[in-house]
Amino acid sequence: MAKPGSRASFCSIKQNRPPVNNMATFSYQQLYSFTQQVFLAMGCPATQAETASNVLLSADLRGIDSHGIARLGGYVRLWQAGRINANPNMAVVYETPSTAVVDGDAGLGLVVAPFAMQVAINKAATCGTGWVSVKNSNHFGIAGYHAMMALGQDMIGMAMTNASALVAPTFGKERMLGTNPIAVAIPAGQQPPFVADFATTTAANGKLELLQRKGANTPDGWVQNEQGEPSNNANILKEGGALLPLGSDREHSSHKGYALGSIVDIFSAVLSGASYGPWAPPFPAYVPMPQNMPGQGLGHFFGAMRIDAFRPANEFKAEMDHWINRFRDTTPIHPHQPVLIPGDPERQTEAHRRTHGISLEGSVLNDLMAVGASFGVPL
Amino acid sequence: MAKPGSRASFCSIKQNRPPVNNMATFSYQQLYSFTQQVFLAMGCPATQAETASNVLLSADLRGIDSHGIARLGGYVRLWQAGRINANPNMAVVYETPSTAVVDGDAGLGLVVAPFAMQVAINKAATCGTGWVSVKNSNHFGIAGYHAMMALGQDMIGMAMTNASALVAPTFGKERMLGTNPIAVAIPAGQQPPFVADFATTTAANGKLELLQRKGANTPDGWVQNEQGEPSNNANILKEGGALLPLGSDREHSSHKGYALGSIVDIFSAVLSGASYGPWAPPFPAYVPMPQNMPGQGLGHFFGAMRIDAFRPANEFKAEMDHWINRFRDTTPIHPHQPVLIPGDPERQTEAHRRTHGISLEGSVLNDLMAVGASFGVPL
Repeated sequence: MAKPGSRASFCSIKQNRPPVNNMATFSYQQLYSFTQQVFLAMGCPATQAETASNVLLSADLRGIDSHGIARLGGYVRLWQAGRINANPNMAVVYETPSTAVVDGDAGLGLVVAPFAMQVAINKAATCGTGWVSVKNSNHFGIAGYHAMMALGQDMIGMAMTNASALVAPTFGKERMLGTNPIAVAIPAGQQPPFVADFATTTAANGKLELLQRKGANTPDGWVQNEQGEPSNNANILKEGGALLPLGSDREHSSHKGYALGSIVDIFSAVLSGASYGPWAPPFPAYVPMPQNMPGQGLGHFFGAMRIDAFRPANEFKAEMDHWINRFRDTTPIHPHQPVLIPGDPERQTEAHRRTHGISLEGSVLNDLMAVGASFGVPL
Repeated sequence: MAKPGSRASFCSIKQNRPPVNNMATFSYQQLYSFTQQVFLAMGCPATQAETASNVLLSADLRGIDSHGIARLGGYVRLWQAGRINANPNMAVVYETPSTAVVDGDAGLGLVVAPFAMQVAINKAATCGTGWVSVKNSNHFGIAGYHAMMALGQDMIGMAMTNASALVAPTFGKERMLGTNPIAVAIPAGQQPPFVADFATTTAANGKLELLQRKGANTPDGWVQNEQGEPSNNANILKEGGALLPLGSDREHSSHKGYALGSIVDIFSAVLSGASYGPWAPPFPAYVPMPQNMPGQGLGHFFGAMRIDAFRPANEFKAEMDHWINRFRDTTPIHPHQPVLIPGDPERQTEAHRRTHGISLEGSVLNDLMAVGASFGVPL
């Protein structure tokens, strides 16, 4: 594993200048160059720094701000703590014609995930489908990026990952599962693709962070307190509380969200040999690693299905256009709020941000400037 | 397709005796014999009548009463209406090493689904995984039965199906999707398997039927009325209302339930060439078929993944035991209500009903006696 702190300019990340309070807007290219230089300074090989930057910033482009450049400092601190290997030797360690297990060698999930998804795509090319479970990885950014890698090959792509435990199962007060997202990307013809990418909880953690900054409460059904009682406190996770599975409570089928999060955990981590459930490694470097971890690192699961493994791709894509058009034409409840196709909001955000730039909050900007300064990389 | 009404004793299903109001309890074997004889009388080949009875009654055993023998009359009426072929020529019509499309030839879904799941299992045996999309089928009973077929082979099983439209997408007031269930069955070692089987809605239709019989209202977040306004009327589907996707409303992430139901619809019906979205064929024979159907019949999707396509099966099963034990030991909110593993309630119900029998409501019993009488089969 590459040694952290090996650059002369590296002197831990702290803020030596007056903090910025206002938001500032940057072009995608500005943020990309900065991110790429930080990863290079960490010791990532050039192609991996490029891949990691593409993946990380795809979240900012698509409007999932909690998973984008705001996390760059978090990755650097994990590397500092010796939990991320900047130059991993990723490898297929087990396989059949349609499956593989990848060992990520403690690399950035931002790099391990595209490597593993490419293995799935290659297997699908020869065998119809490809399914890859990954161990010994770290946070992989947004699941949607990896699933969407399949689209250009006329394949359906799938991506999921486990994550550190913040979610209580139905009837429980302990945090046992991560927000464990699922992404599914399906190609269409004239229409843009169908891209679903969602946490298996009622609210993702990023939604709580937005409310924290506003000093606002959560709606009912998002979180519970340490005793398992309903709560509206957006800071409750800091007080031992938990996020709730999709469905919120038993009467609204939280057992289904719990089952979905569990399936993601098992496919990603038990199939591969990663650490699962409450033992999934935490993202914040200051949180101690769990005791008695049953596997290595975080786990992911990827799938690719060639469309023409089921029917000619042009036929399927014409039917998908028909599906999408019909769903878009659903009679809306309110005339000003049409029914959306999964992926519509993110695509609209991306089009806007590619033109108008990406705004960063003061707190994010301060962290990034500190990260940059520690490597001698200006933002 | 076998002609309905071809038996001399067949004279349409109607009630010629005083209706029964009370519940009555039968042994599994009594209900099995009756069901099998009805399917034989419909013209099903002997092995198919056996399979269909196994699948249908697995729902009664597992406590999903809405999908069991209570639907037998519905299948018979679909056959009477010429919408079910009692002696189908099921066939793989398209394939790769890890995939297939099955044409169900308008057969009972209760027969088509196990046929297709077996194709998936066979492909997994040689290729690591198998994935089968099905067109031209009908209602397949409980998804869990088909997913669980994989367990005995040390495989993970998956099953899903589309269904006639009862669910409004987020922001919509039209019924566009079925309750589109997903089942995932995962083997363990000493522990019983993990078996999740759930509709992608907040409440399945069967839950509404229970409330209707009690004359009770639904909780908030289960249904909306024809205008898309919140409703608590358990009969609202008869008045143009709709079930809500898992999540209930936008604030509680109904867009995730809508995405899940859509993925099931696309995998089951767009991949295979079945009829999708609002065009999925209805189960009640008196409901006219939709106009301009884009495909043939209902669609299903099945998957099988060999455990040892990822890691040695004994290793995996030991880790699953560890996973299950840890989740069962989650600190509960209420000491009397432990955290459950998906599949626990159904397994407990099955153990009870195999010993103590299966109780049928008066209305179900009346329908079954009428069905039996029309074929000369006593209950």
